Amino acid sequence: MSHPITPEILAAWDAADPLAPYRSRFHLPAGIVYLDGNSLGCLPLTAKHRVAQACAEEWGEGLIRSWTGADWLNLPIRVGGKIARLIGAAPHEVIAADSTSINLYKTLVAAVRLRPDRPVIVTEADNFPTDLYIIDSIAEQLGLTVRRVRPNEVIEAIDDQVAVVALTHVNYRTAMIHDMQQITAAVHARGGLTIWDLAHTTGAMPCDLNGANADFAIGCGYKYLNGGPGAPAFVFVASRHQTRATQPLTGWLGHSAPFAFDARFDPALGMSRFLCGTPSILSLTALDAALDVFETVSLAAVRDKSRRMTDAFVTLFDETLVSWGFTLCCERDGSRRGSHVAFRHPDGSAIMQAITAQGLIGDFRPPDVLRFGFAPLYNRYADVQALVDVVLSVMRARAGLSAVTAAAGS
Amino acid sequence: MSHPITPEILAAWDAADPLAPYRSRFHLPAGIVYLDGNSLGCLPLTAKHRVAQACAEEWGEGLIRSWTGADWLNLPIRVGGKIARLIGAAPHEVIAADSTSINLYKTLVAAVRLRPDRPVIVTEADNFPTDLYIIDSIAEQLGLTVRRVRPNEVIEAIDDQVAVVALTHVNYRTAMIHDMQQITAAVHARGGLTIWDLAHTTGAMPCDLNGANADFAIGCGYKYLNGGPGAPAFVFVASRHQTRATQPLTGWLGHSAPFAFDARFDPALGMSRFLCGTPSILSLTALDAALDVFETVSLAAVRDKSRRMTDAFVTLFDETLVSWGFTLCCERDGSRRGSHVAFRHPDGSAIMQAITAQGLIGDFRPPDVLRFGFAPLYNRYADVQALVDVVLSVMRARAGLSAVTAAAGS
Repeated sequence: MSHPITPEILAAWDAADPLAPYRSRFHLPAGIVYLDGNSLGCLPLTAKHRVAQACAEEWGEGLIRSWTGADWLNLPIRVGGKIARLIGAAPHEVIAADSTSINLYKTLVAAVRLRPDRPVIVTEADNFPTDLYIIDSIAEQLGLTVRRVRPNEVIEAIDDQVAVVALTHVNYRTAMIHDMQQITAAVHARGGLTIWDLAHTTGAMPCDLNGANADFAIGCGYKYLNGGPGAPAFVFVASRHQTRATQPLTGWLGHSAPFAFDARFDPALGMSRFLCGTPSILSLTALDAALDVFETVSLAAVRDKSRRMTDAFVTLFDETLVSWGFTLCCERDGSRRGSHVAFRHPDGSAIMQAITAQGLIGDFRPPDVLRFGFAPLYNRYADVQALVDVVLSVMRARAGLSAVTAAAGS
Repeated sequence: MSHPITPEILAAWDAADPLAPYRSRFHLPAGIVYLDGNSLGCLPLTAKHRVAQACAEEWGEGLIRSWTGADWLNLPIRVGGKIARLIGAAPHEVIAADSTSINLYKTLVAAVRLRPDRPVIVTEADNFPTDLYIIDSIAEQLGLTVRRVRPNEVIEAIDDQVAVVALTHVNYRTAMIHDMQQITAAVHARGGLTIWDLAHTTGAMPCDLNGANADFAIGCGYKYLNGGPGAPAFVFVASRHQTRATQPLTGWLGHSAPFAFDARFDPALGMSRFLCGTPSILSLTALDAALDVFETVSLAAVRDKSRRMTDAFVTLFDETLVSWGFTLCCERDGSRRGSHVAFRHPDGSAIMQAITAQGLIGDFRPPDVLRFGFAPLYNRYADVQALVDVVLSVMRARAGLSAVTAAAGS
């Protein structure tokens, strides 16, 4: 049962929003309603300053001395520690490094090595493509079988042949949230391991990896964490696996003593063994600064706002947009929906172009899906109304144009 | 036969140096002689400005639109094209991405897949550790054998069992330059493939991958290219291999149509198949800008200056430093020496600390090696004299201290 949503109600929610002060910590382009923070988060002002400082002072003045002087060497660990708080992990269980794709490769090989006699990897058929591609690549290399299942078929696909279940916690199109605790328990009951991709989770809702007894996780720095374009990703490995888990990208920074320049690889104790080459310090610095914005943020408040925004949108969608030929294609149950909404239309691509031309930015996902993300730290409840208004305005203009065209043709 | 080297001669060379104007394009810390550009190159002023612009305008204002508006999507290809000119490759044969370690993983797996019936990888026992670790990791995964040989034993180690010879062109300690043309020809004569790690080559000397008929190469963005701490690395794949070479890190940006979100991986035509996840745009932008400094640079002039600097150092070393218990441990033949020098001393670590305290920065490499790199774009011939003077000053102070200690103890 949904409540009525009006511009006045949304304005009242904005006025009472405990997260409203965070908006001023971001640069928001003038004249734009930005609903794509789930693709690339807005620029935190502190990130701009810190990157400039890292360039001028740490690189320019400090040069090689900054590996110790600015502690660049431990930056992947420090950033990991900040992310840990957002995902229910201990600080020593997370590092920031490389890309989500590369981190999935590391963790998936590590996980299947821990279950050498099991030939199956389970994933969701509608997982984000890069996850599917990396899973297939590893399966092909190691002679494993991949079971691609529908979201509601995961539990039944788990048997004692399954080495690893690798899922994205929040689906990139439907926003459906998997039950991390239930699935992890089911996997463990059959002796397997889990890898959770938290790309659309981290920074948008509470997440409790250790509460769910998760084994491995990976995630993205540039979506709700606002770490900048192509920000480094992260890796979580539960403490209990850290001494036995080994990964194949054995670069020098994963060595127990990188500056001993040993001829043989000896994996570092702890998460550093999931590092590979030299980290991109400028990009990592932006992410580090962006995470400072979260220092005082309550993820419960983030989730509450996110939920109310997407719920409000769904209510307005049913009231106004559905009659224009749109179909909701995100999760309808708010308790199982992440922080974005999605709907489709046969003319989705052209409609998205018209929406963008009006200064509202979302994502088009082929063949016909329009996707809009709500980032509770800088989006306002008023943005929900703006989305509906812009879509309606686009559809009315199209209808007017059609009428004119039809009249001209008659 | 070496010429006499005096401060006056070095000053005259600086005065006549065609590369001298480039020094003003870098930020050089006051009061420091920086001889570690082979670990981390100095900050090009243009990189500082371009990174600030990428933060404020491309990320802050453009947001997700910058993937097309600022052409972030093609940045790995654009940067690769700029590197191509420096390594004797065609622009479409190089991309910038990930780290050197990760790129070695990609290219080595790709290369052994092209020689599926050959069980051996040859490398140099004194190769940079990250190369050795990655080679070992792949060999273990794929059941291959690694032959680690001395630098002068490479040719004789090549037989028809060898799938790949993976070497670093310029050794990170001895600075010895392998003969790329001769070794590549020998490998090809036996049916194998080559991977050249150009970490200490690119930007410090001419390099002609296609002239040598090389197969694969990788290299580093943060040494002589001055791309910033942990700058993205690069990958070269000869045109003739590009349609058949496949690599295991099959992230979405290596797909032929990343934004079609296909369920199955289909490698991109050309070098893009060697991309994996989303590139770190801020770090890549710094490298992009740093490469613009090279636009008008003659690599022949760079090599000439580099050669004269290291030759001058070796001459002065023999005249003055050798009597203080130092042993030269870099290549003595200037024609086979890269752009750094190295020497050892039983008290190397303590001596390096004292050198650093005097404002001269180089690298210590365990157990006892002092290494100093000459970056012809911003180092001066006078820096050669400064190095010798500082080392002498440190040794004299140590001797004085020893004399005092001995007198006090008598």
